[in-house]
Amino acid sequence: MSDSPALAAVSMDAIVALAKRRGFIFQSSEIYGGFNGFFDYGPLGAELKKNIRDCWWNDMVRRRDDVVGLESSIIMHPKVWEASGHVAGFTDPLVDCKVSKQRYRADQLFFAAVIVAIPKTETKQDLNSPSENLTTLDVEMATIGYVSALESEKTAAELQEKAEELKRKKGIRGRLQPVQVRDMTEAQPDEIVLIPSPATGEPGSLTPPRAFNMMFETHVGPMRDSSAIAYLRPETAQGMFVDFKNVWDTGRVKLPFGIAQIGKSFRNEITPRNFIFRSREFEQMEMEYFIHEDADWAKCHEEWITWCEAWLKSIGLPASHLSRHTHPKEKLAFYSRGTVDIMFAYPFGVQELWGIAARGNYDLTQHANASGKPQEIFDEGTKKKFVPHVIEPAVGVDRILLAVLCAGYAEEDVKDDKGAVEKRTVLRFSPRIAPVKVAVLPLLKNKPELVAVAQALHAKLKRKYAVFYDEAGAIGRRYRRQDEIGTPWCVTIDFDTIEKPGQTFTLRERDSMAQKRITEAELFALLDEQVY
Amino acid sequence: MSDSPALAAVSMDAIVALAKRRGFIFQSSEIYGGFNGFFDYGPLGAELKKNIRDCWWNDMVRRRDDVVGLESSIIMHPKVWEASGHVAGFTDPLVDCKVSKQRYRADQLFFAAVIVAIPKTETKQDLNSPSENLTTLDVEMATIGYVSALESEKTAAELQEKAEELKRKKGIRGRLQPVQVRDMTEAQPDEIVLIPSPATGEPGSLTPPRAFNMMFETHVGPMRDSSAIAYLRPETAQGMFVDFKNVWDTGRVKLPFGIAQIGKSFRNEITPRNFIFRSREFEQMEMEYFIHEDADWAKCHEEWITWCEAWLKSIGLPASHLSRHTHPKEKLAFYSRGTVDIMFAYPFGVQELWGIAARGNYDLTQHANASGKPQEIFDEGTKKKFVPHVIEPAVGVDRILLAVLCAGYAEEDVKDDKGAVEKRTVLRFSPRIAPVKVAVLPLLKNKPELVAVAQALHAKLKRKYAVFYDEAGAIGRRYRRQDEIGTPWCVTIDFDTIEKPGQTFTLRERDSMAQKRITEAELFALLDEQVY
Repeated sequence: MSDSPALAAVSMDAIVALAKRRGFIFQSSEIYGGFNGFFDYGPLGAELKKNIRDCWWNDMVRRRDDVVGLESSIIMHPKVWEASGHVAGFTDPLVDCKVSKQRYRADQLFFAAVIVAIPKTETKQDLNSPSENLTTLDVEMATIGYVSALESEKTAAELQEKAEELKRKKGIRGRLQPVQVRDMTEAQPDEIVLIPSPATGEPGSLTPPRAFNMMFETHVGPMRDSSAIAYLRPETAQGMFVDFKNVWDTGRVKLPFGIAQIGKSFRNEITPRNFIFRSREFEQMEMEYFIHEDADWAKCHEEWITWCEAWLKSIGLPASHLSRHTHPKEKLAFYSRGTVDIMFAYPFGVQELWGIAARGNYDLTQHANASGKPQEIFDEGTKKKFVPHVIEPAVGVDRILLAVLCAGYAEEDVKDDKGAVEKRTVLRFSPRIAPVKVAVLPLLKNKPELVAVAQALHAKLKRKYAVFYDEAGAIGRRYRRQDEIGTPWCVTIDFDTIEKPGQTFTLRERDSMAQKRITEAELFALLDEQVY
Repeated sequence: MSDSPALAAVSMDAIVALAKRRGFIFQSSEIYGGFNGFFDYGPLGAELKKNIRDCWWNDMVRRRDDVVGLESSIIMHPKVWEASGHVAGFTDPLVDCKVSKQRYRADQLFFAAVIVAIPKTETKQDLNSPSENLTTLDVEMATIGYVSALESEKTAAELQEKAEELKRKKGIRGRLQPVQVRDMTEAQPDEIVLIPSPATGEPGSLTPPRAFNMMFETHVGPMRDSSAIAYLRPETAQGMFVDFKNVWDTGRVKLPFGIAQIGKSFRNEITPRNFIFRSREFEQMEMEYFIHEDADWAKCHEEWITWCEAWLKSIGLPASHLSRHTHPKEKLAFYSRGTVDIMFAYPFGVQELWGIAARGNYDLTQHANASGKPQEIFDEGTKKKFVPHVIEPAVGVDRILLAVLCAGYAEEDVKDDKGAVEKRTVLRFSPRIAPVKVAVLPLLKNKPELVAVAQALHAKLKRKYAVFYDEAGAIGRRYRRQDEIGTPWCVTIDFDTIEKPGQTFTLRERDSMAQKRITEAELFALLDEQVY
């Protein structure tokens, strides 16, 4: 929840509004009032999402000689999730309000005891004025009740206000102490009945936190009993572990090598939030990089962190918005050797974008034990068998998409043809991921000579690129429309195109708004260089 | 279940074995004994699947001006599936065996009454010899029991054999009548107790067919009661209907236009079968093409059927394997105007590949009624509001992938360098979808001059294409390995490459096995022309 000065100017409201207005992102099932935690990607969003996936796949799989792809099923054998530890441990702490039937994540529900320093000896004073001149020697500390609030950017301030209000309501004199904020996982058993529910404002209805498993359950086959329970995967990674031996035996691979996968995962979040940042259905891009048990894992870990940072920059995320967070040793799982998150400065705070974990050989060992199928491979050098270790970079497509929307969004004052100042909204997408690469614009739609050339160029371009043909409205307005959806270039077919020798077009660049003349061959060369 | 002479030579066993051996397709969760109805795509399968998706997306969305993309969520508001009719009607008839606990799809469980013509008057004759000279006047027809069998290519023959065995066991004389095959949906109530279970061979344990809903259910949010039930989508199409107005309002579209989507769907099949043809988790490519209520729907329908056929050919499916099946009028849903399936001759029969349905305006109307949100648009010409009609081409990625595997598979006798006949297995994939486009092969791996040129070419190619570098083994063996995974071209870097002027490579073509010399520029031009 830390602040992000770099992005202070961009509001989530502006992002959400543009995403809806231009068909990037809709809430799921909107005509039925929406469905909390699920989102749909409209025409431009679907293109943007596909481009992010394709860039990752090209760079991670096709352009590397040491990584192969995989597409494992979303529903796998339930024993996979027992072995991985998800059935027992993939939980969030849940608190119920028995009166309102609302549910809260315990670590997002904050509370504080309201403590007042009350004078020991009765003195005549205004109850409403702070008793500034009392010393601790003269007072006793009294807990007069509890206040609660849901996590937000101003949780502490909200609790302090509520504490003041409680003191006022109860007509208690004395000096209110600064609140000590805790969350519900830290509440003592005897405190829980005293903490008010955020839904009702009254204490007594909240339950102690209980472990809530975030895997969606279903039943496979016609039976509905416990033998038929299966889960929607909460991560794609287990597919790579379960198929490790199949890939090893058939894929002509040797250590070190990676198995990469892109696909949907599902987590039954108690409180989905921050737009597409934390939703219940999302898409992951994960890679398991298998290394020798004696390999220098720390060096390999660092190389992958560096690779991931470089990749994020290659699709247009500015270094200024990226940072690293190293998980403290004492918070790591027992098998983990280290985890570093690449963080992004979202408008709602600096948050995890890409986690790169060194997981030892925990997962393969778990599956070997649970399945009875050894997951060892043979080392030609030492003539010994061993279970490979793994480095795992895991990132969410939706989080990247939100990051490029936030980093790319700008509102600018620009001058129109007549010198008047107008506002333009622009999405500074990298050409690699922009939903539309080029817009083809005949200067006038009622000049068949211009339209014919424009349509021919459009037809040629769209064989390889996502392009948009637009002949409606003034040229300046058409440029603005493309700016708003992040199209890097507009090509205008004007009278110079048809009247001057060596057919050239006006190439108008989105960020600088600079214009220059370009031939068709130069245009294709530009795209070939910038888009792949 | 019709026969397919064209594919008689290809066995599913050979396809499944190759798919496993070369890492195209594995059964899901294999180390845990597999998971019925779920499959994983290995390194080559994931590439092949991605290429099929990308070809469809490019042709359907990016290269057309009248179709836009969408990615809606797999889990949608449950009211979507009430309005669409899936909650009430998306069922298969299910029969339970109460003894074995096995479940069967009633329309795949066949049975027959065993009827024997028994002589009315006792005559001396061998019981085992057919009573050829009895006429119908001399006999009475007696039902001596029932036999059952699961659907297969020889269900009728199997039932006839079982009938004969029953007659023999019961020691009944007379002439056995040819069995009349029916499925369990046609069984009379008093027959059901007489039909033996395929699991036990004994009658009395089968239940009457009941409707079994094929949607996978789950619960969204922390509640587990009926208010929290949601479904995994059984088709992607409803996403396009539910988002129709959002796309209409934001997508700068006008009639006629389409919304296309690629994504996973889930159906809890009672009996998944035929490898990846009918699985419980699969991937669809669907498009809803919205047309004016007064448009010539039949013409539009035909245009889309033709488009789909042409597209299948463009990715390498031969016309000889394709056919059309028009659904008979009396079997159509009341709102349907017509459905045509493009059929493919799989080794297990001619089966549905791509359904093209004219659905009227049923779906949008259903959602308008259920949501209270009008789905009408305004016709500028007639100044009237109306609900658009729709043509829906719907195809499964997995079925296409299986079709290209079956159509492309061949085993051939070829001569090696020394004239000896050897077998080669080849997958004749179209360059558009082949998992590897080019293999780069230095003739000898211990000649640094050859290796350096090969690696430089490989690096250049892989920026844009999926390529494979291989220096291990004799060149003939390396060609065979590429044949078996469907790589259209091999490029060999040999001594002519480094010794003769104008650096050329040996281009070896997969199907003809012809070789010719080619320059780097010619190679790139070839790929640019054939791969997109």
